[in-house]
Amino acid sequence: MVKIGLLGAGRIGRVHAVNIAGHARSELVAVSDVNEDAARSLAKVYGAKAISSEEMLQDNSIDAVLIATSTDTHSEFIEKATAAGKAVLCEKPVDLSLDRAKKCLAAVSGSGMPVMVGFNRRFDSNFAAIKASVEAGEIGKPELLSITSFDPAPPPISYVKLSGGLFRDMMIHDFDMANFIMGEMPKSVHAVGTSIVDPEIGTAGDVDTAVVTLTYADGRIAVIKNSRRAVYGYDQRIELLGSEGLLSAANVLENTVSKATKAGVTSAKPEFFFLERYMRAYASEWDAFVSAILDGTPMPITLRDGVAALALAEAATQSRNSGRPVEPPL
Amino acid sequence: MVKIGLLGAGRIGRVHAVNIAGHARSELVAVSDVNEDAARSLAKVYGAKAISSEEMLQDNSIDAVLIATSTDTHSEFIEKATAAGKAVLCEKPVDLSLDRAKKCLAAVSGSGMPVMVGFNRRFDSNFAAIKASVEAGEIGKPELLSITSFDPAPPPISYVKLSGGLFRDMMIHDFDMANFIMGEMPKSVHAVGTSIVDPEIGTAGDVDTAVVTLTYADGRIAVIKNSRRAVYGYDQRIELLGSEGLLSAANVLENTVSKATKAGVTSAKPEFFFLERYMRAYASEWDAFVSAILDGTPMPITLRDGVAALALAEAATQSRNSGRPVEPPL
Amino acid sequence: MVKIGLLGAGRIGRVHAVNIAGHARSELVAVSDVNEDAARSLAKVYGAKAISSEEMLQDNSIDAVLIATSTDTHSEFIEKATAAGKAVLCEKPVDLSLDRAKKCLAAVSGSGMPVMVGFNRRFDSNFAAIKASVEAGEIGKPELLSITSFDPAPPPISYVKLSGGLFRDMMIHDFDMANFIMGEMPKSVHAVGTSIVDPEIGTAGDVDTAVVTLTYADGRIAVIKNSRRAVYGYDQRIELLGSEGLLSAANVLENTVSKATKAGVTSAKPEFFFLERYMRAYASEWDAFVSAILDGTPMPITLRDGVAALALAEAATQSRNSGRPVEPPL
Amino acid sequence: MVKIGLLGAGRIGRVHAVNIAGHARSELVAVSDVNEDAARSLAKVYGAKAISSEEMLQDNSIDAVLIATSTDTHSEFIEKATAAGKAVLCEKPVDLSLDRAKKCLAAVSGSGMPVMVGFNRRFDSNFAAIKASVEAGEIGKPELLSITSFDPAPPPISYVKLSGGLFRDMMIHDFDMANFIMGEMPKSVHAVGTSIVDPEIGTAGDVDTAVVTLTYADGRIAVIKNSRRAVYGYDQRIELLGSEGLLSAANVLENTVSKATKAGVTSAKPEFFFLERYMRAYASEWDAFVSAILDGTPMPITLRDGVAALALAEAATQSRNSGRPVEPPL
Repeated sequence: MVKIGLLGAGRIGRVHAVNIAGHARSELVAVSDVNEDAARSLAKVYGAKAISSEEMLQDNSIDAVLIATSTDTHSEFIEKATAAGKAVLCEKPVDLSLDRAKKCLAAVSGSGMPVMVGFNRRFDSNFAAIKASVEAGEIGKPELLSITSFDPAPPPISYVKLSGGLFRDMMIHDFDMANFIMGEMPKSVHAVGTSIVDPEIGTAGDVDTAVVTLTYADGRIAVIKNSRRAVYGYDQRIELLGSEGLLSAANVLENTVSKATKAGVTSAKPEFFFLERYMRAYASEWDAFVSAILDGTPMPITLRDGVAALALAEAATQSRNSGRPVEPPL
Repeated sequence: MVKIGLLGAGRIGRVHAVNIAGHARSELVAVSDVNEDAARSLAKVYGAKAISSEEMLQDNSIDAVLIATSTDTHSEFIEKATAAGKAVLCEKPVDLSLDRAKKCLAAVSGSGMPVMVGFNRRFDSNFAAIKASVEAGEIGKPELLSITSFDPAPPPISYVKLSGGLFRDMMIHDFDMANFIMGEMPKSVHAVGTSIVDPEIGTAGDVDTAVVTLTYADGRIAVIKNSRRAVYGYDQRIELLGSEGLLSAANVLENTVSKATKAGVTSAKPEFFFLERYMRAYASEWDAFVSAILDGTPMPITLRDGVAALALAEAATQSRNSGRPVEPPL
Repeated sequence: MVKIGLLGAGRIGRVHAVNIAGHARSELVAVSDVNEDAARSLAKVYGAKAISSEEMLQDNSIDAVLIATSTDTHSEFIEKATAAGKAVLCEKPVDLSLDRAKKCLAAVSGSGMPVMVGFNRRFDSNFAAIKASVEAGEIGKPELLSITSFDPAPPPISYVKLSGGLFRDMMIHDFDMANFIMGEMPKSVHAVGTSIVDPEIGTAGDVDTAVVTLTYADGRIAVIKNSRRAVYGYDQRIELLGSEGLLSAANVLENTVSKATKAGVTSAKPEFFFLERYMRAYASEWDAFVSAILDGTPMPITLRDGVAALALAEAATQSRNSGRPVEPPL
Repeated sequence: MVKIGLLGAGRIGRVHAVNIAGHARSELVAVSDVNEDAARSLAKVYGAKAISSEEMLQDNSIDAVLIATSTDTHSEFIEKATAAGKAVLCEKPVDLSLDRAKKCLAAVSGSGMPVMVGFNRRFDSNFAAIKASVEAGEIGKPELLSITSFDPAPPPISYVKLSGGLFRDMMIHDFDMANFIMGEMPKSVHAVGTSIVDPEIGTAGDVDTAVVTLTYADGRIAVIKNSRRAVYGYDQRIELLGSEGLLSAANVLENTVSKATKAGVTSAKPEFFFLERYMRAYASEWDAFVSAILDGTPMPITLRDGVAALALAEAATQSRNSGRPVEPPL
């Protein structure tokens, strides 16, 4: 049984709390949040204690922490928690600053403590099936990867301004997915972006629609499409063309019902957003983290993976600004 | 090159005329119809002559006739044409009277002339693929066949009154399909039917919605569902469960486009009716007929097949009236 | 918070235990089983006590019981539990004997205690969407219902012999679904069945493949297809044709991945069996039961519903044996 | 009735001959080819005369010509035919040289004769449905277009060397499709390409896999993916994200049959290649050309459209070589 401290009692912290408490081999013992009421309220549901983050890091009965605080605190908490001898599962992204993330990586490397970054989509059963099929050689040699990733609606402008931009905040998931499927970093990143969904997003210096092309040393290509608005729901698909076939992961729909009338045949929309679509993936992610700790196996996603995705986001941001392809700075 | 006389210049006659004239190995040389204007007008399009049916049957330059006249004339034309040494492709059904059809079968058997009955659906590429897969053993031993066959809208009451009833007029296609897929006649037929779509159809002594269950000597079962009204279009599907799998033929849709909006995901309806859905099947049917004549191979659908389907329609009619299972009278 | 006693610690009892313990408004306090080890082992997982069924029924701190024991004990436990003032959720079927079930219904009616029968499929989100759409009038007036329900593999012969037969054991779910969707009992039941999957099942007096046709007073028709063997997985589909359209609930697949190669396009199979397909439905079922108790609303499925489904199973059994349509004995 | 001369009796010429001869308002009167035997043999099938291209252009009884000769002769034939007062339907591309194509455009503009370029895909019913839906405002304002276009297998190296490269030979169809759907030229083109399918194609100076990103003045984006090899067949899909929804055109499959077994659910592959997939589109294209001539309406695809697509191919070629975005030279 792993004893867990949860740093952050916001929306994503609450999602993780369910899985921590519900897992047969983990126990939620403490919750902290800068909003102490939020921490107390969440802790109460699971019979955990609400404490400060300092107390949590000093509590030797806590084996591991899950970091679900605001992004600007991730690197510091990772460093402190590993220094305190705790295993870490940290939400994405590691940091908005690539430099800061690299420093964190260097600091942690010395500690020998296991750190996992929460790229939940790797645990989606559909994408995992794609990965397994590729690894099994079922479509031969991969050649061209396509990732479609659209959110149902743009976040508030206040969020956009603090987000680090679409590439670091949203597409970072897709950069990690590309690294996961392709198994290595691309040698070049080219990005185009526009604020066609909401000009205010452009005024805030960000884009809401973007296409990024990645090229690999061996000639493979990947293309990632992002939009902040797909009114029909969360659109999360992957296609991989290989020398012997094509793998496609379609959306998960709200139900399997279709209705045929004079007006056409209507079927269900994709699951609305990430909490619905990736509900099971978060549980699998947690299980993988607990298993790695208790069974002493390597973390399925490392801190280096988190920094690598951030390096691609950095390159995409630069490419979008300069109009030119950029080599990822890692 | 086979020289063809077309008996009947109505809707289905015109469909066949296109295929006769367009086929590399057949030529439309003559058209007859009780409506002489219709015959003349159709003949003109293809450079054929408009003549009476008597003249057609006596014309030794004509190798084969396609019978697309009203059902009550089918048996007589089949008998006369074969007696005149012509090959015959006759539209379904052979007759509304099973006794008359049996007499026709007996008469023709002596002539040695090839007669094919126009069960166009056997030539639909989807259903043909089902048959080929079964024959290849791809789902093991067939056990349970399901046929769904819904028209987009009921015919006029005037048509219903002359049609011989849903079982002889509409479900006869499905009876032939069951015979085609299962490869033998069932030993028992049970039918239920209702006039829930239009009570006037009930007043006219017919049903508009029906379910027929067929059981076979070796334990296999088939179930056929018919409705005169599917407002979304012509619904034509087959499923076959076997010891090693399930084969399903889905509808052919008007196009492959889908539209995802807040209201759901809308895709195209099935092809509207038999002329759209089976356009290609009619061409394949004609090709099969011409090939059988010129290559001297057996007709892919025989007059006996036409009588067999009619025997099932007869049994279903009796079962629906009596409420009891009926053994097919053939 | 409802305090729950669980009668039966077998496979389905364990499924329910997860939901009872995981629900925010119910608590699993006691488990009983004729196999005391099974009861103790399951009770231990959830911090409940293992007691005898007699003790459970006499324990006034227990508000409700879930009956997941062998079918032959259902009626008696329902009677005893309601007499002891406990709400009841009982697994299907109520009994193998229709007479016994009717007596149970009569006995319970007097008690005023709420009893729900566990027809889990009503809580499947896909079938529930069909029901909601019909009720909203989205396809007009229902006319023809089709239920496909195939198990992945036949049970052992030892199970078959005690099961009461396919109609009472397996198709009873579909009879309830027909009652659920159509909203009333049919006036006539016609069944055909065969032991084409496994002749030993026939030797044991049962069938493994069956088609049942239900006709309703107002002219509607329903057809149910069952097979004990669909090698590709649990096949659970519903179609409902109405005056203004068709509703279809397709299978829930293991994932959304497809693979296109020279050999064709391969996609995932249906979820393997009822535990996979209806995992979420069992949780929704439990939630509905708890809500009805705590909110004082009517049970969504009543004991009378359970008896009604059994009456259809009885009629189907008789029809299959006699070859004739049978009026349901309720 | 339009009298047609066909220039070129090769594979695509023969496809057009079927449609010219089969159309109710056009007649194939003459065929020419540098291979006189090919011309004679094709002419014979349709009762046309085999003549030289010079004779054809001088023959005043010929109203229009279809140019299906090798690409290097297109511009000259367009100029000569329009100078001779003939309407022209010319196969794509107009030319491999953008400069030559622009000169042709200038020359023809003076003639006042109608010229259509044969971008057959605009007449595919699926893509046409996408266009119609966009025009009807069904998905609001378009934002992000994706075109997937994979051939089943790479052409011979000898063909590759003369083809002008993937961008001019293959992706030119997709450039035209982008222009068709988006309704204007992009302001910038960025291309990446690789010869991962066959290194010999790289040695020949070409690519076999490519991704091109187009950006538009108003912020819209389009991305085109090409591969010379999709072993499962011709992959031709379009997606268009708009402010109010997503339109998707899926592949046209060989049939609608699926087979579920222990190994999964297998369905049909896409139609094999362009002759299968676009068979009907070629007929619609021809009908549009004939209608424009006889009804005096504008050509649905102009010579300027042909030059515009070529300008995008030119820009993509330059971008792929330089690694930088390129403004299309038109």
